[in-house]
Amino acid sequence: MANDYLARLDAIRNLMAEKAWDVLIVSGSDSHVSEYVSDRWRGVRWLSGFMGEGDLVITQDHAGVWTDSRYFISGREELSGTGYELHEIRIPGAVDVPEWLAAHFMEEVDGDVVICVDGVTQPARSVLDIKKTFSAFGYEVDNDNMGLRIVSVPDVLELIWENRPAIPMSPIISLGEDLVGESRSSKIAWLRNFLEEEGYGAILVSALDEIAWLLNVRGSDIDCNPVVISYLLVTKSEVRWFVRKTAFSRLDEETMESFGELKEDGVEICPYGDVEIGISEIMQELGEALYVDVDHLNYNLFNIITGVGQEGSVVMGASPVAVRKAIKNEVEIEGMREAHFEDGLVMERFLYWLESQVEYSEGIDEWDAACHLNELRSEVEGFKGLSFETISAYGPNAALPHYVTPHRGAALLGDDGLYLCDSGGQYMYGTTDLTRTVPLGRCDSLEREDYTLVLKGHIDLAMAIFPKGTAGCHLDVLARNPLWRNKRNFGHGSGHGVGFFLNVHEGPQGIRQDYNEQPILPGMVVSDEPGMYREGSHGIRHENLLLCRDAGENEYGSWLKFEVLTLCHMDTSIVDIQLLTDEELDWLNEYNERVYDQLGPYLPREVAHWLYRKTRPLEREKF
Amino acid sequence: MANDYLARLDAIRNLMAEKAWDVLIVSGSDSHVSEYVSDRWRGVRWLSGFMGEGDLVITQDHAGVWTDSRYFISGREELSGTGYELHEIRIPGAVDVPEWLAAHFMEEVDGDVVICVDGVTQPARSVLDIKKTFSAFGYEVDNDNMGLRIVSVPDVLELIWENRPAIPMSPIISLGEDLVGESRSSKIAWLRNFLEEEGYGAILVSALDEIAWLLNVRGSDIDCNPVVISYLLVTKSEVRWFVRKTAFSRLDEETMESFGELKEDGVEICPYGDVEIGISEIMQELGEALYVDVDHLNYNLFNIITGVGQEGSVVMGASPVAVRKAIKNEVEIEGMREAHFEDGLVMERFLYWLESQVEYSEGIDEWDAACHLNELRSEVEGFKGLSFETISAYGPNAALPHYVTPHRGAALLGDDGLYLCDSGGQYMYGTTDLTRTVPLGRCDSLEREDYTLVLKGHIDLAMAIFPKGTAGCHLDVLARNPLWRNKRNFGHGSGHGVGFFLNVHEGPQGIRQDYNEQPILPGMVVSDEPGMYREGSHGIRHENLLLCRDAGENEYGSWLKFEVLTLCHMDTSIVDIQLLTDEELDWLNEYNERVYDQLGPYLPREVAHWLYRKTRPLEREKF
Repeated sequence: MANDYLARLDAIRNLMAEKAWDVLIVSGSDSHVSEYVSDRWRGVRWLSGFMGEGDLVITQDHAGVWTDSRYFISGREELSGTGYELHEIRIPGAVDVPEWLAAHFMEEVDGDVVICVDGVTQPARSVLDIKKTFSAFGYEVDNDNMGLRIVSVPDVLELIWENRPAIPMSPIISLGEDLVGESRSSKIAWLRNFLEEEGYGAILVSALDEIAWLLNVRGSDIDCNPVVISYLLVTKSEVRWFVRKTAFSRLDEETMESFGELKEDGVEICPYGDVEIGISEIMQELGEALYVDVDHLNYNLFNIITGVGQEGSVVMGASPVAVRKAIKNEVEIEGMREAHFEDGLVMERFLYWLESQVEYSEGIDEWDAACHLNELRSEVEGFKGLSFETISAYGPNAALPHYVTPHRGAALLGDDGLYLCDSGGQYMYGTTDLTRTVPLGRCDSLEREDYTLVLKGHIDLAMAIFPKGTAGCHLDVLARNPLWRNKRNFGHGSGHGVGFFLNVHEGPQGIRQDYNEQPILPGMVVSDEPGMYREGSHGIRHENLLLCRDAGENEYGSWLKFEVLTLCHMDTSIVDIQLLTDEELDWLNEYNERVYDQLGPYLPREVAHWLYRKTRPLEREKF
Repeated sequence: MANDYLARLDAIRNLMAEKAWDVLIVSGSDSHVSEYVSDRWRGVRWLSGFMGEGDLVITQDHAGVWTDSRYFISGREELSGTGYELHEIRIPGAVDVPEWLAAHFMEEVDGDVVICVDGVTQPARSVLDIKKTFSAFGYEVDNDNMGLRIVSVPDVLELIWENRPAIPMSPIISLGEDLVGESRSSKIAWLRNFLEEEGYGAILVSALDEIAWLLNVRGSDIDCNPVVISYLLVTKSEVRWFVRKTAFSRLDEETMESFGELKEDGVEICPYGDVEIGISEIMQELGEALYVDVDHLNYNLFNIITGVGQEGSVVMGASPVAVRKAIKNEVEIEGMREAHFEDGLVMERFLYWLESQVEYSEGIDEWDAACHLNELRSEVEGFKGLSFETISAYGPNAALPHYVTPHRGAALLGDDGLYLCDSGGQYMYGTTDLTRTVPLGRCDSLEREDYTLVLKGHIDLAMAIFPKGTAGCHLDVLARNPLWRNKRNFGHGSGHGVGFFLNVHEGPQGIRQDYNEQPILPGMVVSDEPGMYREGSHGIRHENLLLCRDAGENEYGSWLKFEVLTLCHMDTSIVDIQLLTDEELDWLNEYNERVYDQLGPYLPREVAHWLYRKTRPLEREKF
């Protein structure tokens, strides 16, 4: 394979020389600045073989992939011999793409620096960053004759990418109010009210999960993300949904039906490719400003939007949809509870099977385990796919927080050490995401200590009570403190937002050190997932989903707390009870008791018995 | 008194009418945007009788004082009958001065709004805020004919303020390298290196504690803040200190001597009033930009600096002095330890005396207690004054976090409930600040619980270990979590920076919810002071000073921890031991043991015996 990548790199460089581009940037994003993308937009992977999330930069004398700590180890392996170098970002002293480029070309100040981007997949924000950085380095920017020049070539890779996957067109389903708790008409009315109040004429929504939420539709255009590749333009009188390229007659029945419903609700269905014309048209007629969320805008659309019309005809800001979507309504909350109940039954059956396999079978590997778990999930009514690729990792493999279990050559599960499984499902009525770290037998003292300290952090965050207005970045330390006190840490956030039968990562809230002023509000769902990773030895993560709920008011403020949505017992066999406070121990025992009480009656008899033993309360030894 | 304030308000309104000013703003600040000010700049107090920190705004139909939660209760009492209304800031939904003004005058859009400020005491930042807000409300700004007009009248209050206090001129002392660990020449050389590296020609330092630190001088121009009212202008070849107005022959001997030393080190002594001319002169000669910290600049100087020279001749940014000053060197750290040792001896003698007074005396009040404590401190060698006015508060009075103990009518200390004492000293070799909450006898269960929960928060912050780069806002929750868990909270930060024989509040670091990206670095000193206040009942605060120290490196990062500087036992008699974790209990017992070990040998015999009993380890009951 490495030779393929070298050949492609050669082809790219020839193209660049021909076109007189000094730099080609290939973004890891799609046209909607999605976190996860469909195969069509996996140009970085196709070019370099890099499997993680990252951006790629090619010059005549250098080729590199810029990525974060999740992919440092796996990325180096994948890029070995491909001609690409791995650049680390989001670490102290990191040199980001704009800075690297500006510094790299500082010596060629006598001539232009021409950077080619694929405007369709390049986030507008990233190009603005490049311009800003080059300007700070002393380049002339926005000047066609001198300094930095950005050339935007939509779908540039098609020039050399044969058999590039098409834009996906999975069936589109329409969800009724009984499932999602609010009609699309009500959501559109709310959005129009936003336009009215803020004095805008229209809004372009380009974030795929926001569109799916607004229109109460789901697809499967991106693996594990039940979204539909599309744009939505809402004015005070029109709703135009730019989606699909085919004529109606060639659509599947489910999509046809959904389109019918949408049209009844006043949604005009337009071809995906017409979005540019559509925006230009509307902007010329509008009279008031178009509102867009620049963080989900690609560079191509950014140019179109800022090129049409006069000054003041565009206002860029955060999407109002994101927060409202993140606050689940009562129907969504009930659905999430149901999804976690079904998912819990699956998980307990899986963990029971896993233990018996390890004890009695010829040997299963990480891949087998993942497959069995996926199979169990797929039997659940309303299951629509995984919410992300299952991470099934044993021993040292679990030390990679984003380990991708290989189909061939996966590690065999032994009868000692720790097995980590991070997985989740998309159900018609909710999304799940949980991680369990399971002792497969004997564990050493460091494994026990790490396991317990991570559990302490997990429990401390879950038990949090906090005043309304508290942002997640202020809660993050609760999940870390037990590790910090022992000079240990983990390199990812403590929690992320989770959608309702939507993306498993959703904003705007988060629980991490990075500053984010978004308060955690009642109805929001966040994960609680501290971890601990020892390269070459083991990895531990304990993850539940938490629902933020009201906890009453008093003279000191309005209070919020978390309800644990996830239902799956926490293994107590290697917990070092001395490290837990009484409160933490009580939480653990009560949680496990609740898991047994809620799931036990619905599990096969032998699994229920096993779970009963697994959830017996942990007690301190009496002296 | 209230009639005096009404009369002054009348006089002001007549003046405003005469001058055609719609608004007069009187800032609670001095010319250096100091947190605490000398009597000369207590215009707000002179006009309204308000004793706290706040800004005052007068129109023909309204007069108000804008202040934060520390002064809501006391402020309302003080302002009663004065014609001024109290406006609350830093609470959800607060309307700040700029917003209030813009909204108030929205209806008079046909004419100008003329705002008069005393440019000398009005922070530049606040005027910029007013302009920005008015502009957002649709006013024309920076246009002499229409909309908003700001009139800056230096020392405007002198027009009606008879017998206004003069600019203070306390004796200036010069501190040797043996006391402060670094010569002024070295500090100036470092500052010039900053100018060199950043490409600036000069820097104007206007923050008084930064000047004191840079020049190794101290004064007592502001109560409890050992600073000298002055400006410092440092170019690559000159150091001009604008200080004092008198001729050399009329200076006190100490100041004369200090000036002599400074001149030997190349510091030119200039009259305070010449700063405006000095800046103009230097800016015209400079060729390179002048660097200023706009957060410590008054509006008058801001106008001068931005009015002289061309574009690019001024750069505004954060002062580089603040961080370097906050990081104490080894000599300063040793001095701080010594100060806390001496201060601890004072405190234990005070607490011993207090207990005996409450038990055996006719009755002492809060004022007597504060006086006795101040007297004990003043006997210490090197004592240079209090670091802030002692808060001596009994029972419900302690529920006001910034209670000012009255000379007459202070509460008598009884033999039950809680007494809170927050105090500190300025010593030649360091600054102290501690709070002890002392049970004077029987306490009810809520007092015991509050006392213990605040103590838990205090201990949890003190025990923190955290990776290098962690900002204080991420640690704040550690001090709050035990209270939050019980739906209780306190309305102030958990910790503030503390100077070395300098201001008891110093930045840039802090431990509070407000976002502040400044990491807590080795050598920084911060307070650890969670509290709990129940109006009409009791107030609790436990405060020590912590020194940030290195805690080693490992594969997970560079680690930092705190050393407790304060030496004064924590009363354990009303601790609810069930609420403490084993770790917290160990910390408490070890701390008290250390206090006894270090102070005991130096205390009078009967005090040492008493302290021995007071610091006996708290033990859980065995069942």
